[in-house]
Amino acid sequence: MNAQIVTIGDEILIGKIVDTNSAWLGNELTLSGVKVQKVSSITDNEDDIKLALKKALEETDLVILTGGLGPTKDDITKKAIADFMGQEMYFEEALFDKIKAYFKRRGIPMVDAHRLQCFMPQGVRLLENQMGTAPGMLFEKEGKYILSMPGVPYEMKWIFDNSFKPVLKEMLPDGLYIYHKTIKTVGIGESRIAEMILDISDTLPSDISLSFLPSLGSVKIRLTKKSESNPKQEIDTYINRLTERLGSYVFGFNDLSLEEALLRDFSEKELTLAVAESCTGGLLSHKITSIPGSSKYFLGGVVSYANEVKENQLTVSKSTLINYGAVSEETVIEMLNGILNLMNPSVGIAISGVAGPGGGSKEKPVGTIWMAWGSKENQKTYKLSLAKDRLKNIEYATVFAMNQLRLFIKDL
Amino acid sequence: MNAQIVTIGDEILIGKIVDTNSAWLGNELTLSGVKVQKVSSITDNEDDIKLALKKALEETDLVILTGGLGPTKDDITKKAIADFMGQEMYFEEALFDKIKAYFKRRGIPMVDAHRLQCFMPQGVRLLENQMGTAPGMLFEKEGKYILSMPGVPYEMKWIFDNSFKPVLKEMLPDGLYIYHKTIKTVGIGESRIAEMILDISDTLPSDISLSFLPSLGSVKIRLTKKSESNPKQEIDTYINRLTERLGSYVFGFNDLSLEEALLRDFSEKELTLAVAESCTGGLLSHKITSIPGSSKYFLGGVVSYANEVKENQLTVSKSTLINYGAVSEETVIEMLNGILNLMNPSVGIAISGVAGPGGGSKEKPVGTIWMAWGSKENQKTYKLSLAKDRLKNIEYATVFAMNQLRLFIKDL
Repeated sequence: MNAQIVTIGDEILIGKIVDTNSAWLGNELTLSGVKVQKVSSITDNEDDIKLALKKALEETDLVILTGGLGPTKDDITKKAIADFMGQEMYFEEALFDKIKAYFKRRGIPMVDAHRLQCFMPQGVRLLENQMGTAPGMLFEKEGKYILSMPGVPYEMKWIFDNSFKPVLKEMLPDGLYIYHKTIKTVGIGESRIAEMILDISDTLPSDISLSFLPSLGSVKIRLTKKSESNPKQEIDTYINRLTERLGSYVFGFNDLSLEEALLRDFSEKELTLAVAESCTGGLLSHKITSIPGSSKYFLGGVVSYANEVKENQLTVSKSTLINYGAVSEETVIEMLNGILNLMNPSVGIAISGVAGPGGGSKEKPVGTIWMAWGSKENQKTYKLSLAKDRLKNIEYATVFAMNQLRLFIKDL
Repeated sequence: MNAQIVTIGDEILIGKIVDTNSAWLGNELTLSGVKVQKVSSITDNEDDIKLALKKALEETDLVILTGGLGPTKDDITKKAIADFMGQEMYFEEALFDKIKAYFKRRGIPMVDAHRLQCFMPQGVRLLENQMGTAPGMLFEKEGKYILSMPGVPYEMKWIFDNSFKPVLKEMLPDGLYIYHKTIKTVGIGESRIAEMILDISDTLPSDISLSFLPSLGSVKIRLTKKSESNPKQEIDTYINRLTERLGSYVFGFNDLSLEEALLRDFSEKELTLAVAESCTGGLLSHKITSIPGSSKYFLGGVVSYANEVKENQLTVSKSTLINYGAVSEETVIEMLNGILNLMNPSVGIAISGVAGPGGGSKEKPVGTIWMAWGSKENQKTYKLSLAKDRLKNIEYATVFAMNQLRLFIKDL
């Protein structure tokens, strides 16, 4: 089964929003064995929607539309579909009752736009949406399908997961396997990896595809094979060889994030962590706590943005700040000892740098970031020399910090 | 001038990465007066790339390809373009010298893949890339253009901004105006806004388009007009009417973020801020410090994830934690006073809640988040009752917190 994803809305074309829905859908469909041929974004003009539907249905079995449904004026997708299918609109009483009940429960006044939402093209199969007022809509046309969902990501995801997946299962034939596995690395670049694994990648069978996915500070390596017999074992053998070769650069597999790897490693060793952040401003704490269960090892942190906070909460001495500056090895070591004494974790980390775009000097240009990490007994420091982009600097430093923590506790 | 954006890579189709490049390009092109007709993502198969180039060039003046360039094996875009243009490849010595120098400067060994990168299709105009080793490539074919850039966002952006924009300027005809302005609101839903402004939106001229862009906790309202005379004044008049109607829900215009509005408002009143975060785990601090200049008002914060940190650093009393729990009005008030005493800011905020998915109880289900904010003299509290998604809860609470801070200091 093939699919195309079409997102509707000028907002995407003029760049006012990023289309995250297609990536999510692409992943879900691929894992379900549906091949996504194409993703496209079109304007929310009725004729463009009809033309896109026509073209896509010529090439594919399932067209998934997202966007263009909702209580405000810019809703025209429904009209375009009704017209394309040659159907009239009708008023869906049951939906109206549900929306009324929903607003009553939440104590919010209902507005006229919500009544208009209840007009539906004839022949639709409505798919429940517990996250909002616009249901998903499924249509069949000559053995092919159109699925239309609202563009709000959490509504779309809820409908797809809960209301559409059971239907999709019935649509799919049995017996085709797609298997992929991803190695997650951190602390090494794409080209260097390519070189390290060259002899393995050169002997990969041609039906196994290898791809690199670099992002700030980390690279994913993915192997994929599609076949009529289950390719899991073959892929896993290559994954094991690559993993062995890349050693401690590898922190996990598939969707495991670096944050999750930290939680895994700290929990395993029953260690705790506290952090002192200056230039990263809380992003390290946020990343760590973005995953459930992080309270198992993360005690907390101090965001010491102002120098007085470095002095008063983290006991950095005034003379260190004056003599060496807030961005220095001396300061991060004192910050580290400050947070170790304050919260008494097994391990701590301290970060202070010039994130930019201002604040740089000839001696300490934008992108200079000092870190110190370790326990009371064993401490390490490092100076990063990054580039000029503020957010990139903050994010890279955070990834670097998590990696150093991961490597540090390997030997504890 | 029309354009289509084509992103290359299976990674997008199978959902392993989100295409943020297209949104960025869409915005840049729109602001330059280029209409983006379509955005699409295709596989990194050579034939698919050639077919996409052919189709797009039939419909449009400028095709922008991103992705499929880089030092690792999955680079085939260049070959597809060379073939499509009917050109041979040649070795670009100057590029090779530059890459060699770059690696020497950074002290990183150069690998073979970087040499292969220096083969280029004849007839190319190379566009400098100071962020990486693969330059942008511009081709002309019968008065139409193909621009190909690497997919790594900061490389692509650098090339577009610095190397392509000056060229684009020469391509464009003079005299067509596209003007849009966006009102940024927070603390009110899309439907409610639609109702509040109904009489204004109903009388909008048909050539002015109105759209709503909801995201977690905030909604943008955008007016657009394209015309041969400058529509700025007309749009601004309607923007003023809408802004007046929506009152304090409006925090700014266009690309101004809520974080930037906070910086603006706090700086204007010369106030300072410190935060105490439990369930938001540092995201509030991160958002605040994600923009340059935030050190003007942001002193710092404590991420009090463990109860001991609430007790020891924020002086929340043990009895409060035992009698009312960490997620309670009593606790956030003590956390607020703790951070006010600790860092002595003009204003503070404290947040404690059950972000989920675990940790909920019948009395305090997942999504229960208490906040307290204010100065030593004047404090407010609020209980949010959110849903089940951890990250959504953390993000919504952060937006809510920033909005309460914004509203609180209005009267100071």
